Order: sequence, then structure tokens, then C-alpha cells
Amino acid sequence: MNINVGILGLGTVGGGAFQILERNAALIEKRAGCPIAVTRIATRTPSRAARWGADTAIVSDDVEAVLNDPDIHIVAEMIGGVEPARDYVLRALQNGKSVVSANKELIAKHGPQLRAVAEQNGVDLLFEGSVGGGIPLIKPLRESLAGNEICELMGIVNGTTNFILSKMTAEKSDFGAVLSEAQQLGYAEADPSADVDGFDAAYKLAILAGIAFDTPVDIDDIAREGIRGVSARDIEYATELGFVIKLIALGRLSDGGALQLRVHPTLLPKNHPLANVSDAFNAVFVRGDAVGDVMFYGRGAGDGPTGSAVVGDIIEAAKNKCRGVRNLDHAPQSKRAMHPFAAIETRFCVRMQVGDKPGTIAQIAGVFGDAGVSIESIVQKHSDGDVAEIFWLTHTTTQSAMNAAMAQFEQLEVVREVSSVLRVEGE
Amino acid sequence: MNINVGILGLGTVGGGAFQILERNAALIEKRAGCPIAVTRIATRTPSRAARWGADTAIVSDDVEAVLNDPDIHIVAEMIGGVEPARDYVLRALQNGKSVVSANKELIAKHGPQLRAVAEQNGVDLLFEGSVGGGIPLIKPLRESLAGNEICELMGIVNGTTNFILSKMTAEKSDFGAVLSEAQQLGYAEADPSADVDGFDAAYKLAILAGIAFDTPVDIDDIAREGIRGVSARDIEYATELGFVIKLIALGRLSDGGALQLRVHPTLLPKNHPLANVSDAFNAVFVRGDAVGDVMFYGRGAGDGPTGSAVVGDIIEAAKNKCRGVRNLDHAPQSKRAMHPFAAIETRFCVRMQVGDKPGTIAQIAGVFGDAGVSIESIVQKHSDGDVAEIFWLTHTTTQSAMNAAMAQFEQLEVVREVSSVLRVEGE
Repeated sequence: MNINVGILGLGTVGGGAFQILERNAALIEKRAGCPIAVTRIATRTPSRAARWGADTAIVSDDVEAVLNDPDIHIVAEMIGGVEPARDYVLRALQNGKSVVSANKELIAKHGPQLRAVAEQNGVDLLFEGSVGGGIPLIKPLRESLAGNEICELMGIVNGTTNFILSKMTAEKSDFGAVLSEAQQLGYAEADPSADVDGFDAAYKLAILAGIAFDTPVDIDDIAREGIRGVSARDIEYATELGFVIKLIALGRLSDGGALQLRVHPTLLPKNHPLANVSDAFNAVFVRGDAVGDVMFYGRGAGDGPTGSAVVGDIIEAAKNKCRGVRNLDHAPQSKRAMHPFAAIETRFCVRMQVGDKPGTIAQIAGVFGDAGVSIESIVQKHSDGDVAEIFWLTHTTTQSAMNAAMAQFEQLEVVREVSSVLRVEGE
Repeated sequence: MNINVGILGLGTVGGGAFQILERNAALIEKRAGCPIAVTRIATRTPSRAARWGADTAIVSDDVEAVLNDPDIHIVAEMIGGVEPARDYVLRALQNGKSVVSANKELIAKHGPQLRAVAEQNGVDLLFEGSVGGGIPLIKPLRESLAGNEICELMGIVNGTTNFILSKMTAEKSDFGAVLSEAQQLGYAEADPSADVDGFDAAYKLAILAGIAFDTPVDIDDIAREGIRGVSARDIEYATELGFVIKLIALGRLSDGGALQLRVHPTLLPKNHPLANVSDAFNAVFVRGDAVGDVMFYGRGAGDGPTGSAVVGDIIEAAKNKCRGVRNLDHAPQSKRAMHPFAAIETRFCVRMQVGDKPGTIAQIAGVFGDAGVSIESIVQKHSDGDVAEIFWLTHTTTQSAMNAAMAQFEQLEVVREVSSVLRVEGE
């Protein structure tokens, strides 16, 4: 049986996947057990298809021709965004085609529903390319680790913010300067919000957590904080105390079975496996009840890496088509209880500007104590005589206790400004 | 359909797998799409089965009862060693049972033949647990990265030697002292040869390389050198030059398509992702033509980790049994050409004891030069007045050029001893 693939979208990912399918066709045929050919490509700009080496005869801007071609077995959706991608994916599934998607926003927002439609139609919906570029994540989580209850998942899943934080650390620069540089280099978008405000990481966490903890996840279930508030000073103190700062996407099962999901800048001990993941690399750290700690590491984006994930999924869907089966993928039915954000327990770092006079530290420490927050260490390094900067590292406490302390500091004259509040994980 | 599993061997791995199947039965049933039950266990010491919580009614020392039970669908072989495990696996396959094995020596030596027998009998032979404990390796290599030509594979796959080298580095101790300590702690066997002489790592490399490069591998194809020759002095110089020393299992495709396979102590730059893999952890670094660099990291042994891999395979085999399919796994037919060891290209570190008098370095450098070996740096730190120790770091050269230089040094009076010759990779 020959397997025919229709491609929707010929940007970086679509072009990358197409090139791999062409270049490695012989090897892929051997591994899939059948020849796999791209027979149609729909793209908004057919004139640019030549750059990927695509035969112009199979390229057009006609999506319908792909969705309705009865000879196409697998549709690879690499358009991005929710609409019209969602409509295309739905119709491809309903037409009996397996679908491979690298679209994180679509899968994060509509994954469970689309997986149910795939199941009803007896076809596959695979989305390895939607998280972590070429790093095998979804399949190992779903299959290799299937014997485990996953207790925790912690990842660096956004290359742009990891690049910015790595550069801020290496060059002791502030966020704004490094962002501008990243934008000039093309590592950050003109509107950087999707990356630096943590939306992209939240989409990826929704997908990974949905698989790892077998539950539908709403984007609003994820507490989200970006890296705009991280300054060179925070990194300076963190380094001094033996930590690095990373934008971490975290999912964790509480003892009672409730799930906490959050994306925020996080201090990690510098010997943590994620601490050395720099620049545009991604990595996901998983803790299972049997396997213990495992980590997956690699390039989180790009035509080759993400194309590799898409082609891996295409090969899987092709093998299934040839044998008349589909992957066992039951869309999760019941939703896990969510752990309230105020109840999360973690250590905090608080950097604040205070009036530099006797009794200040005692007064602030009193507020922390009254709120039930106990302090592990205090660093005071910078002072202009009038205002001093203090960096507090707390023992484990709850978010609500920290919130209570923060509310008090707003009333406290000696606290001129709370400059940042960061969390510590991975100890 | 209910899937029945027979277990052969109830040691650490067998017991671990059994416990996971029991503890997570509900979750496993959901993921497999069918209930999975262990219905028979054969072990040499049935009296010890209680420690794993096994019902004594299903435990005996009768292997035949497992192999010949028509109600058993999957046999999990966790005995270890070649015979009688090979005979049992063959007969289970011939009886139409899928087989899951965690037996590295068996799979390394007879994997291709056993895979062919599985194919002939329409059943699965899965062996994720044979390499890297619970780290997903075989499945991601074979499936997630199926679109890639794998160019290189480099791994820390033996926990005992990694523990010893990590401890030698942390404590600046010599091999013998740390080995004794590791033996007392139970991290090394009374006869440590399988680990410290690199046999275990070579078995694992044979398995991984067979999958990654799609070729049968003979153990004798692997150039193998253990860690007995690594001293505290080597680590001292390596550290000073920015390297760590790890026992590395390496597979690499040469430009012409020939495969080089070697296991030896190796200097890695300290910022290499494998450099921070310490103690009993394992990690495998893979380079694909599309995906670039990816790394898999986790615990390389133990009842939970290896049990996790075995259970993952059992779930896979169960899903296949229920759907009447098997994994597409064609045993490799043709063998790749092997790159001659003398022709490998690498950088070397050579530590030697020399007569401490004028002209010595020039004389030795002359020998290197005549052999075509060019020197990048020289460190001379230790001297007792009569004999000085010199540590040479070369530029990239061939093994045969280095062999030629070594032959000359044997003739050279001023070279009292070549204390170690180590290779550098990962730059």
C-alpha cells in the first residue's frame, strides 16, 4: 500500500517536514513498511514552494483539494493558530484521514475534542511536533512510561525566553536590552507577548499535562507569569545563592490527587538537570512513581527538529493505516480537580527596596512571621544610603501566606517597593 | 480481552515489574485498553516471592509451565545471561507468545536472530529494559526519530563506572580505593569486570547501535577499553583543561557510511550535556540529520526504573495482541561496513613519565610530529627532580598515527612510561 500525504501550510515546519520526507524517502519507506509520498501541498504562497524543493505541480492554495482528495490518507496541518486550522483538522478527520499537527495553540485549546473526533472516525490524531520541537515527548510519556503514575512534570518549553534568560545571566544584562537584541536576531517576535508573557509555554504545558495526567486542561487552569519582571539583580542574587532562573512550566499532582499547573520564572538549584539547558534548547523533566526522574532534551524549534517530530508522526500514522488500526488514544473523559493556586506550597524569593534605617529588617521579618512565612536567608548588598535593597529567601510556605505578607507590605511605610517575587523549585 | 503475563525470573527487575503491574493495575488497564494480569511466575527461589507481594499460588520454579501455558499471551524474561534465557525466549516466541526482555547480554548477542523468529511467528519481541533502565530509548529511537538518519549516538550507559568516575572526580581519589568503596556499598560486584572493563556498556551499545543504525552488530565490532587505567592524575589534568572523564559508548557513521563503535573512557568538555550526568544516572545523546541533538536522561537501573521499561513494553505487546497486530520490526538484513579502529579520528590525551632534563620535550614532540600527530597543549606540573610527568593534548589525528607514536616511545629512553592514553569527544 502506498501512503499519500497532504500538507497544509508550507512555512518553516511544513517545509522542514517536506524536505525530510523527500531526502530520507528510502529510509522512511523501510521503517514504515510502505512508501510515503506527499501528493498535495496547500499554502497561501505557492510561489514560495520552490525554496523547499517542492514540485510546483502538487502545490496550490486550495485547501479543499487536500481535504477532499480521496487518495490522501494523512493530512499534516502546519498552519498554526486556531481558525481555520481547527475547521480543516475536523473535516480531515471526518473524511477518514489521519491528522498530524504541530499546532500547539490548537491542540492546547481543542485537543481533547479533536482526539474524540479522531476516535469516532477510527483515525489517528498525532501531535508530537506541538511541544518541544524534535524532542520525543508525547510518545514516550504516553507509551514508554505508560506503567507509571506521573507525579510531576517540569519543563523549559519556550526557546525565546530561555535564550533571553541565558543571555541576561551570561551578560548580566536587563530584560529590555536583551529582548531588543533577540528581536534583532530574529529569536523574538516584534510583538513578543506570546513568548515573554508565558502564553506559548502555557499551551505546551496544557498539552503535556493533558497526556501525563490524563485529563482535559483549560488554559485558564494554568497560573501564568512571564519573564518581564525578572531583572539582572534577581539573577545576581540567585547566582550568589547557587540558583539559576528559568521560565518553568510545571505540573504536579498533590497528595490528594488535585493537579497544580503553573508557568513562571523559577529559581532552580544550579545542579538540577534543567539548570544547564541553555539558549534555544528545551528540556522536560518527568517524575514517575516507578521510573523516578527522567529528562528529555533537544532543540525546541526549527524546520529540522519540528519537521523530525512531524515526520515521526506521519510514519506512525502510515504504519497504522497499512495495518488497518489506529493508536489507542482515548480522549480523557473526566477532569481532574485543580489545586487552588493560593494553596500551592513553594519557597519564595522576594526582592524589595526599603528605607535604610535601624529596625527595618526586624519590622519586615515581623510581617513575614505574622503571615506564617519563615525566612531562610537574607542578602543585603546594594544601598544608596537612603534606600537599601534586600533579597529574602523563604522556607516552604503557601502562596496565600505570601499574598498576606504582600498585602501588609503595601501598608508598611518602610517598604518602598516590592521589586520581584519569584518561586524556587527542583530542590 | 484479558491479557495474561508469565514472568520468568523474580529478581530485582522481575520483582519491580511485578509490583508495578499490581500497584498500577487500574491505570494500566485504562492505557492498554484491556486488563493485564500476571498469571504465572517461574523463579529459582519461589520462597522469596512473598517479598514482592506475589500470591504463592501463581509462583513456582517450573519454567515449562509458563512457556507451555496456552492462556499466557506475553512472557517477560528477566533472568539475565544467555543460556537458558535464549532457549526460553525462542520457545516462547515459537509458542506464539510475545516476549519482553530486559536481558542486555542476550539481546546484544542474539537480538537480530530473535527478532527474526518473532517476525516469523507474528509476535513482538520488545527490550526497552535492556538499556538505560527506565529511560525511554529504544522506542523513541525506532519510532519518534524514524524520519532521521542517525549520525551519532553517545551514551553513559553503565551506572557503576559512572558512580566510580564521579566519586574519583569529587574526591580526587584513585580507581582502586573508589572501587573498594563501591563494592562495599553494593554499587559494584565482587567481580567488577563486567562493569569496569566495559563489557556491560558494550552490550548496551550493540543494542542501541543495532536499532539506530539498522544493522546487526557483533560484540567484537566494538573497540572496548574499561576504566581501570584512569587515575586521579588524569582527572586532575582533565579538570584543569575544562573536561570531565566519562566511560562513553559511542557509535558514529563515517562520511562513507561505515560505522565506528567504541567504548572507552573519554574526555568531554564540561559544558557538554553528558558531562553533568553523575553517579548512577545514565544518559544517551543522539544526533539525527533532521532533529539535531537530543538527549535522554534518567536512572539506569533498579527495580522501579527497569521495571517501568518492562511494563511499558508489556502494555505495548498487550495493545498489539488485543488488536491482532505486531510492531513493525524487521530484523536488519545486511550488515553495515565497520570503520577500522586504526582509522578513527579523534583528539588524544597522553600522560607520560619522562626523564627531567633539557631537550626532553623537544625529543618527544619530534616523535609526535614524525608520526603526524600535532600537539595542542602541554601541561607539566609534577616532577620529583629526576622524573617529570607531562600531559599532552593533541589536535585531531588518527588512531594509527597515535599507535605509531606509541611504538616509537617504547624505543625512546627518555620516556620512562606512558601512563595513560585517553580520547576526547563531544567538542
